[in-house]
Amino acid sequence: MDAVPRDLLRARETWRHRHLLDLERLTAEELTAILDVAAVIKQESDDCRRKLSWLAGRTVANLFFENSTRTRTSFSLAARRLGADTVEFSASGSSLSKGETFVDTARNIEAMNVDVMVVRHGTPGTPHLLAQQLECSVINAGDGAHEHPTQGLLDIFTIRERCGRIAGLTIALVGDIAHSRTARSNIWGLTKLGAHVIVCGPSTLVSRGWEKFGVEVAYDLDEILPRCDVLNLLRIQFERQATRPFPSVREYALLYAMDRRRLERAKPGIVIMAPGPINRGVEITPDVADGPHSVILDQVTNGLAVRMAVLWLLTR
Amino acid sequence: MDAVPRDLLRARETWRHRHLLDLERLTAEELTAILDVAAVIKQESDDCRRKLSWLAGRTVANLFFENSTRTRTSFSLAARRLGADTVEFSASGSSLSKGETFVDTARNIEAMNVDVMVVRHGTPGTPHLLAQQLECSVINAGDGAHEHPTQGLLDIFTIRERCGRIAGLTIALVGDIAHSRTARSNIWGLTKLGAHVIVCGPSTLVSRGWEKFGVEVAYDLDEILPRCDVLNLLRIQFERQATRPFPSVREYALLYAMDRRRLERAKPGIVIMAPGPINRGVEITPDVADGPHSVILDQVTNGLAVRMAVLWLLTR
Amino acid sequence: MDAVPRDLLRARETWRHRHLLDLERLTAEELTAILDVAAVIKQESDDCRRKLSWLAGRTVANLFFENSTRTRTSFSLAARRLGADTVEFSASGSSLSKGETFVDTARNIEAMNVDVMVVRHGTPGTPHLLAQQLECSVINAGDGAHEHPTQGLLDIFTIRERCGRIAGLTIALVGDIAHSRTARSNIWGLTKLGAHVIVCGPSTLVSRGWEKFGVEVAYDLDEILPRCDVLNLLRIQFERQATRPFPSVREYALLYAMDRRRLERAKPGIVIMAPGPINRGVEITPDVADGPHSVILDQVTNGLAVRMAVLWLLTR
Repeated sequence: MDAVPRDLLRARETWRHRHLLDLERLTAEELTAILDVAAVIKQESDDCRRKLSWLAGRTVANLFFENSTRTRTSFSLAARRLGADTVEFSASGSSLSKGETFVDTARNIEAMNVDVMVVRHGTPGTPHLLAQQLECSVINAGDGAHEHPTQGLLDIFTIRERCGRIAGLTIALVGDIAHSRTARSNIWGLTKLGAHVIVCGPSTLVSRGWEKFGVEVAYDLDEILPRCDVLNLLRIQFERQATRPFPSVREYALLYAMDRRRLERAKPGIVIMAPGPINRGVEITPDVADGPHSVILDQVTNGLAVRMAVLWLLTR
Repeated sequence: MDAVPRDLLRARETWRHRHLLDLERLTAEELTAILDVAAVIKQESDDCRRKLSWLAGRTVANLFFENSTRTRTSFSLAARRLGADTVEFSASGSSLSKGETFVDTARNIEAMNVDVMVVRHGTPGTPHLLAQQLECSVINAGDGAHEHPTQGLLDIFTIRERCGRIAGLTIALVGDIAHSRTARSNIWGLTKLGAHVIVCGPSTLVSRGWEKFGVEVAYDLDEILPRCDVLNLLRIQFERQATRPFPSVREYALLYAMDRRRLERAKPGIVIMAPGPINRGVEITPDVADGPHSVILDQVTNGLAVRMAVLWLLTR
Repeated sequence: MDAVPRDLLRARETWRHRHLLDLERLTAEELTAILDVAAVIKQESDDCRRKLSWLAGRTVANLFFENSTRTRTSFSLAARRLGADTVEFSASGSSLSKGETFVDTARNIEAMNVDVMVVRHGTPGTPHLLAQQLECSVINAGDGAHEHPTQGLLDIFTIRERCGRIAGLTIALVGDIAHSRTARSNIWGLTKLGAHVIVCGPSTLVSRGWEKFGVEVAYDLDEILPRCDVLNLLRIQFERQATRPFPSVREYALLYAMDRRRLERAKPGIVIMAPGPINRGVEITPDVADGPHSVILDQVTNGLAVRMAVLWLLTR
């Protein structure tokens, strides 16, 4: 049994939430607490590589009602690298096809003595509903276009790791803001921590209404580019769009793709992020995705650190 | 390595069966032995929450050829809470699509040194067939409309836990008896242990032929209700029925659903069970499903205890 | 923590490859080294039954883009019997449906700190492509009709175990050579180790071109049968064939199925193998498949030994 560092024990004692449903309702102090725990865990686990036993005997259930490679696996590995057991559920093969309600399915899983339930669902608010109905901890792993708090946290963690701070940075979220839960979680987290956030994309995907969330709205990437410390290139979620919001993928790429030409006009230390899965040639060109400014794969590794931190804080 | 309580070691020494295929062929003493082992394990594992290491190094394979959330997961968690490894197979993604026979698939899995194979299949008798062909232990997790012995055991365990005994109780199985493997396993187990069992439902789902199994056949729930200590509300298995066996779901609910009105005319301590997944508003109303008489979620937790007990007894 | 035998530590120190992509590029010494390690591991693990902890803390990812029961499970169990954690990916439910490239999916999985990636894909060369792009070790678990190196190794291991040697044996691969990655891996491995290999089947499935790989080409099983020490009966891969390469299954069975009549004219100690899943009555009759000459299920168990050996050698 590895000893838990005192910092982590103290952080967990003062943590007040049973669930992680969104970043909207977390304070700057709480956000910082998660990031700090994640940093300690990343170090203690040798960059999330070494297996710890701090949650030995606990069970984490993944309840995924939308396709997912990285998030599902990231939670599963995060849980197991802390010594917990995991169980996996997906929409297909479940009793939902026998007429059971979503809440009854979740309650049944909980009755098997699950400690944390990680939920992804196409309908906004589903994790909040479950949190009201269950005794166990609930983590939102994406609810429709609403929030994806651990994605927001891993993006913020990666920026803080690379830039040393969040406050005072200018960070642009580029692309499909309208359909992006990642955008919402980033906006809540980054603005609370003092960043200047710009949302930028075609007017069919970015409305003026975002200004009320304290962010700048822009339609011309080339105009804002020289001011940005970080670009977070959101995927065009073709599968969420009823109608194509721009004339062609080629036109989108012409206006918004991060390519070598744009990189030359950006700040020298600009950080290029993408929550993935990336559409190469759409929101980012391969040379930029694989280049020195890109932190896309760091984001994946940091996803483990952040999820280990959240699992640690929520589990009593 | 946690010490195994002496009671459990003794129970395993005297256990004579290599497989658990049905409750029909178990004696009252054997049924009681399983329930007693389950009770010890439930206590030792802190209500099936704490992980034990009694089956460390063993491998349990789940071979499911029908959809399942709770049974598959329950077996998987039961195995892992005893320290065993698990492997999962389902119909899709298997070599059956390449023309291999079911028995050859199972033999191949066995040749990977699996200790226990948990089998669910739509065809009655499939686990018995495998038991003849394999060296490892086979547990029937449901074979068509034939038997589902661990469901029967967990129902009986829950009744015994709540009522303190089985002998002398009047227990009604209500609803879709014809298509229910749970009904069959309950009938065999409960009658052997001395309960008076009533099967009750529309005549299209409950035939007079059940009387030869030593149970009372009834068609009017309201008539038998005042005599019952336990009601086990079987799900209407819409997916198993070629033709609708009653005019409408609404009429079924009117005649057989357990609702507040019926609860008032039942014995004060009546126990309401359902094997789940439940169809809210069909066989049970939400207020009763979530009320104080309901043991539906206890059944789920006890499913772990009973399956841990069976895995323990079968593994040498 | 079980002590690792000195032989295995030494074998790993001298092992020079980061990946196992094919048998074509391994030397006879390297092939023998893997077989020797597998033999030690089989013994140390009590016939691959006992769980060892030599890869504790490591993570093995299964990335399967074709259906598989035995290979996927075999790798998963091999990894876990060495103490490693496993994660499973399949084509359905992955981000490939969101437009991500195969390489990006693999890189993302790698960024979660996976040590070994086991890959099956319908396109020849896919594992080689990944090996160029990833830092982690890659094991080819079958790439189209190209190679399936661990299947080749387990076949060779089983022959060596049964016959005591490979050099000097006459070994026939019978059936669907054209579509068989197993045939290719067997041919490379067996010829390097000094066996005389015959490929035998209908001319639509076996071309004269195979002679350039140093094997004998035959079309009449009855003619070569008396010379063979081992028959490896390849499955007719109906799912890989655009057009039926012979008039009927019955005619195929008449000419090439191993049945009792043929067994009587074979060498007394002939060894009958099949990589499975077998089509009973097509390439082999049930009495031969289940008879004393058959090592079909030994092959499955030896698959664990060989895969444990490969995982051990590749993991630093």
